[in-house]
Amino acid sequence: MTRSTIDQFNRRDLIRGAAMLGAGAALASPFGAFAQKGGFDDVRKAAEAGKEASVKRIRDWVALDSIAAENRNMPEGAAYMAELIKDAGFSGVQIVPTKGHPGVFGTLDAGAKRTLGLYFMYDVKQYDAAEWTSPPLDCRMVDRKGLGSVMIGRGTANHKGPEATFLAALHAIRAAGRKLPVNLVFLAEGEEEIGSPNFRQLATTPNVLAGLKRCEGIMMPTAMADLEGNATIELGAKGIIELELVASGEKWGRGPRKDVHSSLKAALDSPAWRLVQALQTLVSPDGNTPVIDGWFENVRPLTDREKALIREATRHSSEAQLKEALSFTHWIDNLSYEDAMIRLMQEPTVNIEGLVAGYTGPGGKTILPGRAVAKLDLRLVPNQTRTEAVGKLRAHLDKRGFNDVELNVSGGYDPTETSETSSLTRAEVATYRKLGVRPNLTPRLAGSWPGGTFTQPPVSVPVGRFGLGYGGAAHAPDEFYLIDSVNPKVAGLVDATMAHVEFLHMLVST
Amino acid sequence: MTRSTIDQFNRRDLIRGAAMLGAGAALASPFGAFAQKGGFDDVRKAAEAGKEASVKRIRDWVALDSIAAENRNMPEGAAYMAELIKDAGFSGVQIVPTKGHPGVFGTLDAGAKRTLGLYFMYDVKQYDAAEWTSPPLDCRMVDRKGLGSVMIGRGTANHKGPEATFLAALHAIRAAGRKLPVNLVFLAEGEEEIGSPNFRQLATTPNVLAGLKRCEGIMMPTAMADLEGNATIELGAKGIIELELVASGEKWGRGPRKDVHSSLKAALDSPAWRLVQALQTLVSPDGNTPVIDGWFENVRPLTDREKALIREATRHSSEAQLKEALSFTHWIDNLSYEDAMIRLMQEPTVNIEGLVAGYTGPGGKTILPGRAVAKLDLRLVPNQTRTEAVGKLRAHLDKRGFNDVELNVSGGYDPTETSETSSLTRAEVATYRKLGVRPNLTPRLAGSWPGGTFTQPPVSVPVGRFGLGYGGAAHAPDEFYLIDSVNPKVAGLVDATMAHVEFLHMLVST
Repeated sequence: MTRSTIDQFNRRDLIRGAAMLGAGAALASPFGAFAQKGGFDDVRKAAEAGKEASVKRIRDWVALDSIAAENRNMPEGAAYMAELIKDAGFSGVQIVPTKGHPGVFGTLDAGAKRTLGLYFMYDVKQYDAAEWTSPPLDCRMVDRKGLGSVMIGRGTANHKGPEATFLAALHAIRAAGRKLPVNLVFLAEGEEEIGSPNFRQLATTPNVLAGLKRCEGIMMPTAMADLEGNATIELGAKGIIELELVASGEKWGRGPRKDVHSSLKAALDSPAWRLVQALQTLVSPDGNTPVIDGWFENVRPLTDREKALIREATRHSSEAQLKEALSFTHWIDNLSYEDAMIRLMQEPTVNIEGLVAGYTGPGGKTILPGRAVAKLDLRLVPNQTRTEAVGKLRAHLDKRGFNDVELNVSGGYDPTETSETSSLTRAEVATYRKLGVRPNLTPRLAGSWPGGTFTQPPVSVPVGRFGLGYGGAAHAPDEFYLIDSVNPKVAGLVDATMAHVEFLHMLVST
Repeated sequence: MTRSTIDQFNRRDLIRGAAMLGAGAALASPFGAFAQKGGFDDVRKAAEAGKEASVKRIRDWVALDSIAAENRNMPEGAAYMAELIKDAGFSGVQIVPTKGHPGVFGTLDAGAKRTLGLYFMYDVKQYDAAEWTSPPLDCRMVDRKGLGSVMIGRGTANHKGPEATFLAALHAIRAAGRKLPVNLVFLAEGEEEIGSPNFRQLATTPNVLAGLKRCEGIMMPTAMADLEGNATIELGAKGIIELELVASGEKWGRGPRKDVHSSLKAALDSPAWRLVQALQTLVSPDGNTPVIDGWFENVRPLTDREKALIREATRHSSEAQLKEALSFTHWIDNLSYEDAMIRLMQEPTVNIEGLVAGYTGPGGKTILPGRAVAKLDLRLVPNQTRTEAVGKLRAHLDKRGFNDVELNVSGGYDPTETSETSSLTRAEVATYRKLGVRPNLTPRLAGSWPGGTFTQPPVSVPVGRFGLGYGGAAHAPDEFYLIDSVNPKVAGLVDATMAHVEFLHMLVST
């Protein structure tokens, strides 16, 4: 568990957490550490010359907030994504329709022998501007002590900043008059933040699928660095299902179909109590272990190698700082740090994201609600599948008589796994090592991304998230991405750009 | 269960419900039925002459919305209440401070032998203007088919309209040059809609208490009529406790103190699951019977007389119309109408008014919430008390290890009971009968009002809600109060005013 993982998890305290961690970073080393370790001086010069254009590229993109959950700027976001990759040298760029919001597909034929796939998202998470210290679409630059100059804006870290950093590498390579060492196949979706409900449709669109199958690996540019010279490589990710369980008088045929005066509870059934009773059958009394019938049937326990990787990662991070940053004091069952990290990656979860019923404002209101909703996310581990899990949850509820409780899945996908020995992973490891960054292998991300669509048939290609650069407060107020670093252990925009240049070349030599 | 009870319960469909019921009312009888049955022709003339002033009195009062839950216009509302009763002839009018919002006290010494107490509320329920068909403070007049001309506004029915109708009676008696047959003691609070948290303090303020103890009964003016010539007399009301149960990482010392990324569920406890587990210990699996330890210890079963009253009331109403108006199809346990009505009045309840945790907006958001809240109301029946119930709930949770789950009571009071043989009740019955209205005695209101503060020591005075007039959609959009009736079975403003005139005189002759 590295510090970058703190940031990945942290939603509210990230600024404080980053400042705290940054304050501990030594500033003794000379700046330019990454430049000394890398190569491609001509490309670096081009990247430096293009830095202001790169910053503007992020800024302009952030200004167009595509939010699938709010159906906001979606066609505009797809069109903008298409222009961005055309500008970076892609051809045959297409807006690919889905049942939901469209994807964007394109290829860049460098005449190379090998082909890398790229996965981008052009959507961003919802935001409440009132919670931000600067307007979320304005990309103001702010100095962070011990870190450098960061850009504040929705999507700067997740994922427009890191994605634009990859595009900056393509621009720099071209500006330096070099050819790309690999061909590229590009696929972006606009529904990542709502659980990628139509991503499989997108990836299996015939020409898209044909393109993806030519790739030896598919990479998502991400800011994977922490503040102490480590970068995480995930060998997989949990799957996820986001859903609502809804109990209502309408479907139940008992209790009121609408909110009525609460005195009627003495004679009418309550959909809210119905929901509570259905919910409590899903987990153990401590709320920590799913007890849905057959849930663990296909769960593959972590291997000894995977546990060893977790233990190794745990040794390179501070439990105390993690607890402080994430505002908690005890792990489940008071586990040790090491065991908690193993549990974190090993276990499937049934989590309550939200509860909504009846009156939710200040104080009370004497109503018997006609409808109650629990928003759940279920994290899946190999070899669970989304289809299996939804079916088992439905059957579990039905078996206990909760046939009336609606199960509305809004999105989700299977877990994903990529071998430690794939060329993609080996190139990632080698690039980080060359740049003096410690590659921190973890068996899987406890969170989720829809890489499973790539690793499973019919695509069946290894995936990985890669990139230096540093950002945080994803999904939270004051999301940020580091532009100019004053911390020699952390790459700013140009060094992060160069890491992609190194990676593209490393891939062909691995 | 009468039609007025439908309206009392109905929150959304009231307009439709009223129209539906009104459509069935015969219009064959001549208007002025109430005038023919009543007396006091000189006072009636004065009431008719003062009608426009009475309408304006309601309108101006509604324009000043005092909402305790929002701390809105509270001192202004108390001052306005004080002016209204001075204007109606009260003297020694005081604003009485409490720990919360102030009350208003005053007396009217008519030199009579007997004294009646009055309970008013000057606060109104919250509203969302967007849900209304006309601005909630504008008091627009609208024609309702089969009913007449109604005034639409927040507080018109609950309770400014009925209260102003009583004040109109005092104005009319004075205008006719008559003396009041009884002395009056007046007490108003501004916190009825938040569960009267400081009403006991108000009622036991020494001079207020002394005034109340002089009364032979305390009456709350209310629109108690239905559309078919019945008026309900409640011989009591359930008590209520409004509270929040809060599970949080902060208090629990487990799970996060703030919202964190939901992937952490695999290693962190969940306050939301904690809440669900605590909640489900409170009721039977069907959600219908409280199973809090010792809950029924002091519950007095309904007497045979009380059950007989309920059965009698049930015979005068339509189950089908009730189900339609309140949007449900089955009573608890598929009870018969009669048994459902007995259960309605007999049973204490533990009701979920609202659930709030984590993300409550559209779609999902992958967070593990640091805090989860259930808003509950508990209805109490004789001889439960608020103090007993809060203590038992706390003990129940503690015994099951939920010591960390906060129990925050926002308001509430004990049940209340008034004898069928009190002079107050007898005068109510006699007044209705004289006016040709069928008095519909019910053992108790399934809802609540803080009458228990009056019926219990140290006040120990019978209470009752009384009044003709017709209104509805209390707590709901388009709350209304009938001004000019075209339905001979339903009293408009002047006839409802005259019902109070009759009642005041009936009280001294009963």
